[in-house]
Amino acid sequence: MKVAIVGASGAVGQEFLRVLDEQNFPIDELLLFGSKRSAGRSYKFRGQDITVKELCHNDDFKGVDIAFTSAGASTSKEFASTITKHGAIMIDNSSAFRMDEDVPLVVPEVNGDDAFNTPRNIIANPNCTTIQMVVALKPINDINPIKRVRVSTYQAASGAGAAAMDELVNQYAELQRGDKPTIEKFAYQLAYNVIPHVDVFMDNGYTKEEMKMYNETKKIMHAPDLDVSATCVRVPVMRAHSEAIWVELERPMTVAEARTAFENGEGLVVIDDPANKKYPMPLDIADKDPVYVGRIRQDLTHPCGLSFWVVGDQIKKGAALNAVQIAQYMIKHGKKF
Amino acid sequence: MKVAIVGASGAVGQEFLRVLDEQNFPIDELLLFGSKRSAGRSYKFRGQDITVKELCHNDDFKGVDIAFTSAGASTSKEFASTITKHGAIMIDNSSAFRMDEDVPLVVPEVNGDDAFNTPRNIIANPNCTTIQMVVALKPINDINPIKRVRVSTYQAASGAGAAAMDELVNQYAELQRGDKPTIEKFAYQLAYNVIPHVDVFMDNGYTKEEMKMYNETKKIMHAPDLDVSATCVRVPVMRAHSEAIWVELERPMTVAEARTAFENGEGLVVIDDPANKKYPMPLDIADKDPVYVGRIRQDLTHPCGLSFWVVGDQIKKGAALNAVQIAQYMIKHGKKF
Repeated sequence: MKVAIVGASGAVGQEFLRVLDEQNFPIDELLLFGSKRSAGRSYKFRGQDITVKELCHNDDFKGVDIAFTSAGASTSKEFASTITKHGAIMIDNSSAFRMDEDVPLVVPEVNGDDAFNTPRNIIANPNCTTIQMVVALKPINDINPIKRVRVSTYQAASGAGAAAMDELVNQYAELQRGDKPTIEKFAYQLAYNVIPHVDVFMDNGYTKEEMKMYNETKKIMHAPDLDVSATCVRVPVMRAHSEAIWVELERPMTVAEARTAFENGEGLVVIDDPANKKYPMPLDIADKDPVYVGRIRQDLTHPCGLSFWVVGDQIKKGAALNAVQIAQYMIKHGKKF
Repeated sequence: MKVAIVGASGAVGQEFLRVLDEQNFPIDELLLFGSKRSAGRSYKFRGQDITVKELCHNDDFKGVDIAFTSAGASTSKEFASTITKHGAIMIDNSSAFRMDEDVPLVVPEVNGDDAFNTPRNIIANPNCTTIQMVVALKPINDINPIKRVRVSTYQAASGAGAAAMDELVNQYAELQRGDKPTIEKFAYQLAYNVIPHVDVFMDNGYTKEEMKMYNETKKIMHAPDLDVSATCVRVPVMRAHSEAIWVELERPMTVAEARTAFENGEGLVVIDDPANKKYPMPLDIADKDPVYVGRIRQDLTHPCGLSFWVVGDQIKKGAALNAVQIAQYMIKHGKKF
């Protein structure tokens, strides 16, 4: 199997190198691509040094079976035909194609089979906040359809890239030295702050990040009537996102039923033992593969409502791991590369 | 007017000294009380040094008109009769009496007149998270009754006291030195983390903090059918709490109507100009008096729903300032001390 990573020097690109190795992904040859700036850098994969090539409009992707792309939406759009024209499946981490009708948007635990319907050889990886939410919604929705979702997020710095993570750490160091904190990657100082603003604002007052949760959830879950109202907030955490979720179901559901459903849910781990102070927290969940759920309760405002708390690593399940799992799902279910 | 502060050395006690001065509160004599440990310390108020006396069961409160108490629920319970027996009005910041039927629970902008119904000479100051929420709910509820509230909080370290604020700052310093962070005031490391756990857990899976928002909101707003489902989360912020709120109303309400209602709301300031990246953030709102609201949007899941974002300083409006405003309200409305 010949695999390519596009955007190899970024936070997600680097995670692809680790995840492909951790998952024992079957690779005969690995190619790394990046911008002009990162071309020439070299990264180790399974003991071999691989040099990043500049992404160009040429025939570099001839013979590539799968290309994992994470270099921003404009790069994905510009290079999609270069990447796919010789038959490679492009699993794209950007928002470029997510809502395109002829591009499946896939979370394997939820809609893995959609990955086989790829007229353009492109599969889109959903936004990080959506991925971890739908993994938790799926087992509930399977037994009692969800009508409404309200969700507020506690999003880590990693969602804004490796430089943003550095910026957060540096801000604490700067503040401790009595210096003015450097602000480049976020709209405002993130240290000792929370910022209710992720991605750009839309005309309806929601951010693009919040509308991703609205639109992507419907598409992934094949549920056009399932509405999501999200408030997305950046918090000074390094790499795992947390979400406070309320769901309104068709019928009442007890906490015990919900817990059983979550426990049987694919890709989910329940940590919910308040008496012993056990609940998922981003500091613990950073670098872990599954999505974690806890604080499972009745919604005190609605007889058919539940409330729970979901935490997942943004770079792993929220990005690189989900993309690799899409490829694994396809291989497991008969796709020959 | 003779005024006492009980718990003068704590974060809220210290804020009482600042707020009483800032508000030009009419004081002829100020007495400070504290635990055995803090007795003997001295604090400046309007140029005078005042020494903290140990709180004892004696006649120290003879002649006191108003006692602002913030020394924990058990101290409030133990000393309530000592403080009030000679006629002093006790405005208590603890949770000791909040739900007692013969003790009013007051946010002046919402139910100021309740402060005049004090058979036990006790008035309770609500929990910080409730205060800032009801200030925002009031103007909406006045024109379109609220049926349901879902709220997730982003609570600052200050809610756990001055030592907790120090602990957070120290954790960043310790981590930077490569040391293990000291954890005493919170259940887990708060630096680079969020903890979905404030106060103790109850049998229904909610925390006491979350149930305070449920119970206190009903009482303050005289709305027994207004239900609140809260998820309370500690975040690494110093002193202002943020809240992501969804309300379901009796009838639809446009964002424009809601904005006008908020703008006319008492004690509220609207910061809601997404195009110019203007929204309330805890770093900006620390030490400010009003409650701030922004991110006003339709709830995309419900025709009668709204979503918005509320930020308030936990030590000011969430504690000391609200208590002082209760006294100011009483004076303004004819109470003679």
